[in-house]
Amino acid sequence: MNVLPNGFKFSGISCGIKESGGLDLALISTSAPSVVAGVYTQNVVRASSIDWNRNLTPADDFRAVVINSGNANACTGEQGIQDNQRMAQIVAEQIGATAQQVLVLSTGVIGQLMPMANIEPGIIDLISQSQNSITHFNLASQAIMTTDQGPKTISLEIQSDGQPLRVAGIAKGAGMIGPNMATMLAIMVTDAKLSPANAQGMLATAANRSFNRISVEGHTSTNDALLLIATGESGVEILSDSQLAQFSATLDSACIELAKQIPSDGEGASHLVTIEITGAQSEEDADQVARTIAASALVKTAIAGSDPNWGRIVSAAGYSSVAMDIAHTHLTINGNCVFQSGQPIAFDEAAISQSMADNFETKIKLNIGLGKSVATHWTSDLTVEYVKFNSEYTT
Amino acid sequence: MNVLPNGFKFSGISCGIKESGGLDLALISTSAPSVVAGVYTQNVVRASSIDWNRNLTPADDFRAVVINSGNANACTGEQGIQDNQRMAQIVAEQIGATAQQVLVLSTGVIGQLMPMANIEPGIIDLISQSQNSITHFNLASQAIMTTDQGPKTISLEIQSDGQPLRVAGIAKGAGMIGPNMATMLAIMVTDAKLSPANAQGMLATAANRSFNRISVEGHTSTNDALLLIATGESGVEILSDSQLAQFSATLDSACIELAKQIPSDGEGASHLVTIEITGAQSEEDADQVARTIAASALVKTAIAGSDPNWGRIVSAAGYSSVAMDIAHTHLTINGNCVFQSGQPIAFDEAAISQSMADNFETKIKLNIGLGKSVATHWTSDLTVEYVKFNSEYTT
Repeated sequence: MNVLPNGFKFSGISCGIKESGGLDLALISTSAPSVVAGVYTQNVVRASSIDWNRNLTPADDFRAVVINSGNANACTGEQGIQDNQRMAQIVAEQIGATAQQVLVLSTGVIGQLMPMANIEPGIIDLISQSQNSITHFNLASQAIMTTDQGPKTISLEIQSDGQPLRVAGIAKGAGMIGPNMATMLAIMVTDAKLSPANAQGMLATAANRSFNRISVEGHTSTNDALLLIATGESGVEILSDSQLAQFSATLDSACIELAKQIPSDGEGASHLVTIEITGAQSEEDADQVARTIAASALVKTAIAGSDPNWGRIVSAAGYSSVAMDIAHTHLTINGNCVFQSGQPIAFDEAAISQSMADNFETKIKLNIGLGKSVATHWTSDLTVEYVKFNSEYTT
Repeated sequence: MNVLPNGFKFSGISCGIKESGGLDLALISTSAPSVVAGVYTQNVVRASSIDWNRNLTPADDFRAVVINSGNANACTGEQGIQDNQRMAQIVAEQIGATAQQVLVLSTGVIGQLMPMANIEPGIIDLISQSQNSITHFNLASQAIMTTDQGPKTISLEIQSDGQPLRVAGIAKGAGMIGPNMATMLAIMVTDAKLSPANAQGMLATAANRSFNRISVEGHTSTNDALLLIATGESGVEILSDSQLAQFSATLDSACIELAKQIPSDGEGASHLVTIEITGAQSEEDADQVARTIAASALVKTAIAGSDPNWGRIVSAAGYSSVAMDIAHTHLTINGNCVFQSGQPIAFDEAAISQSMADNFETKIKLNIGLGKSVATHWTSDLTVEYVKFNSEYTT
């Protein structure tokens, strides 16, 4: 984390939403009206904040997003809608904007009213402390965490036609992670100059290759959102086809790197599982096979036990509703072939199990024998700790 | 278990497929050619036995089904196909039938060749011991078990136009249970006289209301099958509309009662979870909402912890892709309202939690506020014991 995009201020404080006293309120604001794009949860049961933001993106007059953790403000009826609007209003009054220039993100427990008596003075404090510094960027990344064990950030600088510009981002998520349009909170920030339409298009593409390809237990949350905010303050306008392609690829990479941090920190996770499907007739088919394997509790428990249980993987692919050619299906686990041309083959089970136990990442590569399309999905394993944690924690 | 349909013989023995020495070979045969119908797994990765049976049902010349546990004979290539055919052939030779009159069912570990040196003499022994007795019916029900903690049986007698006929059945299944056409092994037997077409139609209907509405972890197996065998030896021919309706309802009930025994015995299960959806626009919609809730690890872990966590249930319904009216959505847990008209309401959390802890069955009723259609789904909870078991057991 070395460079930040120009034109942003960040802040993260504790205002008393979390009983633990941890950081629970974050702000990202821009010094001038900026471009914003958003991708949101597909859950029909969703937080007030999601409806609010959806109506306001994409746009070119964005000024700030306020984010709270500890309370999702979901399933809270009319009061929830009013509380959400009030949060935008307070930010707007403090920075000299309209409420419609302010987005709101909430994450935490479902079905409890927001403690507005804490949040209202908290927002004023939050804004007064905001700065363009790595310290404050890091505070913001910590203030959006719920069951996360650590913050999730990315930052990089690229040269576009010889001129530097920067892309950074923060994300949160460890549970209730299901791949159905932006399954967590993430905010990408850049000082590239983008049109709202290009920003929205590139963000949707990046989401489909990153945050839509991760899962923990597959439960799509009520509050998931991914934002891209572009100040343009690098002075670099992304206009030509080659510039757009380069920026889009950079955004894809940044989102993938950030997204992979979520299942790596999945509740109770002892392995990050990378599932690469090849030989599919389309990218959609490959994605469908990958997410079906990623959703299988039997696959995820086997990996928790460092068991190269290829039968569970192949049978999960088989019920994904995707065409596959069993006679030309091959599977490797951590680079070792365990199933070839539809037949079991001899392999050193102890050695593969040891390699699974020794490495945090388990790599599954499955060729389904029909075409040339590929997709990769990242998930966590399913451990005793996940079940213990979710039998005891109220979301 | 008091009455058995006429015209059947049953048998269950140990032939050495299971290392434990447990019963692992079962037979159900008929004294004369009988009607048979079948419903099978939709997994494209499937056992040789599934392809064999699919080609031979429905039919009116059935003589026997041989069932082994301990080995699924799935993902075993050409040798697996030959072994499956050989099993049918040995049975046929012993009972004076053709191989095409004999079905085969296998369940157990995927990807290992069948120990034919044990199975061949085993089948001869199996047939010599078969009898029409409750003892032998029970032996068969035990010999098809894998990770089941106990056998699953049903038996009932009805009067059709004043004449008695009988319906009985056995099933197995505790893990790799996902609702996508007959997700386990079950064999229903009756002495009603049915046409193959009626048998097939009524079996498909019953499957959709019973075995397709249960789940443990949602992993569709490679070997699932549900058979209905009808000897006609009661002398009661099911022909009129009213007789067909009555028999179909009886078969539904018998299948539902047998199906519910599977998640009740789900691997590591501490609760049977009954999910009843009302207020849907169609039965398909209601079913889709129910199975989405049933598939949520967050819902299943909350129930394991006796936590009335309604937010997880409502949010799971929300991502089921089914239309619902949140403002008219109501949820009860064990009869206690916890979410009314889209709003959180006050409830005695400790009392509901205690009721969940005290009862093996947790009853979830969700009205989604749009229509009059209903569906019920049965699943198990997700416990630490499930994860421990599946991290250590090779399927």
